[in-house]
Amino acid sequence: MKAAGETAANVDDLIASARQGAPRAVARLISLVEHAHPALEEVAAALLPHTGRAHVVGLTGPPGVGKSTSTSTLVSALRADGNRVGVLAVDPSSPFSGGALLGDRIRMSEHATDPAVFIRSMATRGQLGGLASAASQAVRVLDAAGFDVILVETVGVGQSEVDVVRLADTTVVLLAPGMGDGIQAAKAGVLEIADIFVVNKADRDGAEATVRDLRQLVAMNRREVSGPSWRQPVVPTVAVDGKGSAELLAALRDHLGWLREHGELDRRRLARARAEVEAIALDRLRVRIGELHGGDRLDELARRVVGRQLDPYAAAERLVTDLRR
Amino acid sequence: MKAAGETAANVDDLIASARQGAPRAVARLISLVEHAHPALEEVAAALLPHTGRAHVVGLTGPPGVGKSTSTSTLVSALRADGNRVGVLAVDPSSPFSGGALLGDRIRMSEHATDPAVFIRSMATRGQLGGLASAASQAVRVLDAAGFDVILVETVGVGQSEVDVVRLADTTVVLLAPGMGDGIQAAKAGVLEIADIFVVNKADRDGAEATVRDLRQLVAMNRREVSGPSWRQPVVPTVAVDGKGSAELLAALRDHLGWLREHGELDRRRLARARAEVEAIALDRLRVRIGELHGGDRLDELARRVVGRQLDPYAAAERLVTDLRR
Repeated sequence: MKAAGETAANVDDLIASARQGAPRAVARLISLVEHAHPALEEVAAALLPHTGRAHVVGLTGPPGVGKSTSTSTLVSALRADGNRVGVLAVDPSSPFSGGALLGDRIRMSEHATDPAVFIRSMATRGQLGGLASAASQAVRVLDAAGFDVILVETVGVGQSEVDVVRLADTTVVLLAPGMGDGIQAAKAGVLEIADIFVVNKADRDGAEATVRDLRQLVAMNRREVSGPSWRQPVVPTVAVDGKGSAELLAALRDHLGWLREHGELDRRRLARARAEVEAIALDRLRVRIGELHGGDRLDELARRVVGRQLDPYAAAERLVTDLRR
Repeated sequence: MKAAGETAANVDDLIASARQGAPRAVARLISLVEHAHPALEEVAAALLPHTGRAHVVGLTGPPGVGKSTSTSTLVSALRADGNRVGVLAVDPSSPFSGGALLGDRIRMSEHATDPAVFIRSMATRGQLGGLASAASQAVRVLDAAGFDVILVETVGVGQSEVDVVRLADTTVVLLAPGMGDGIQAAKAGVLEIADIFVVNKADRDGAEATVRDLRQLVAMNRREVSGPSWRQPVVPTVAVDGKGSAELLAALRDHLGWLREHGELDRRRLARARAEVEAIALDRLRVRIGELHGGDRLDELARRVVGRQLDPYAAAERLVTDLRR
């Protein structure tokens, strides 16, 4: 009990320091949740009263669209507006996309010395769901640490990216000119997840056409899912020289206002909490499955499946039954 | 009971037809497992005695490497060698990669009229784990239908791809010249999953260097995990004109022989069955969680998390406790 008490005191100290702006305390707390430290549950409980204040913004888009530059420019704009900003750069790293992260992080270095900006990269090559779960805990830490806006930028491309985006209150999808066919092909998926579109590199050929196409798409495909009254804006930007930042900031503010006005913020956060609680519960059940019969039950059933004595569904049903004992 | 009996008879008929080479029966069975049809468990039980014979080969690699052409060329080589071949093209579709699939499939059309070749595309944008699970059931169907070799080609890039690859007895990683930096960056991940390397487009500049680099990498990083006695071969190919097919076929045969000789085939299939049974069990537990308290329990707990009365770990523990009641 004493050790636990000391840990609790440490956790409270860490949270207090994090809220006073100490980047080391923030980093330490994220490490605790990221590596599923034994103190994880204590940390989660201690963070709880301080959460629910930040505007969580997801940024995503295909490779080459200028996501990191856009994130960096957006950080500058948010800072100029008086916000403390947390950035979580998430890379659902496939074995083929390991290279980009470091270079991208270096571009963010202009904010490295600003104590009101906290930047963290997260990458994993582990089991499914692990990254989204770790990212959601990291968002909770940044929220409790008092950051006004938390940007969650995904570097990779794939299902994991979409899962990470589900953490956000507002999702910004970045596109660039000259990806016309891609937009057509992707329109269903992109329309599903975007609250705001950014057409970056808007000084390039074809930018106007891309903006126009997207606006048409938005007009045709009003999202029924999250309320018909929000019409996704399409914001042209040139992130490298900051053009369009003010408009993007205004769009973010508008969307947050809309979320609040329509009860949509609560609805989204409820859905997020639901997914989070379910994922944690399933993770615990996975651990318990692994412990059945002194750790042998799953292997024994798998051997019978390979030996064609039991089909995998019947084997799974036995696991479920065993768990209830 | 009568309805169930009729279904069972249908399932047996379908499997018999599939084993006689009727593509419609194969397609119907895959649809049953893909959409988690109520008869799914019956299908799985009926397939069981016929499984375990096929050589399951995974093909993966970054976009632009010529995966579809390589698959198509490999199908031709396997056919010329007297094999029935099943192809499963899996696209863990992100909202940004929706475009490639159709075109890729069209390239496979030279095999469309060959009754000893069965091609199926699978794509999903759903919950995590869903695609790998559906793909593993489809492999089971193709195996039971008597295909000698089953090629599982992944179109996307990401974690899902790696999970799909885990279905295979033998994993082929395709690379191409001029991706040198990519290879360096990706080497850890690629070495982990590859049993055979193919350097496609081997008539291009830099092919020899790529082959040499890979061979060095292989020499330095012998995989301890799956037995130190297998040294991953590096096979140069030009898939568009069939060059290197014979060598790739020989490498596949060598690897299958090695798997059998070292008890590694059983070990891999055991690991696969283990993952499959666990995934099915967790899926069922997820369904049960959703049904707790007439479907309200998870929502109620999520509301308390959003209201800051309960942290997500404490909420998850309550779900786990409720499940055991």
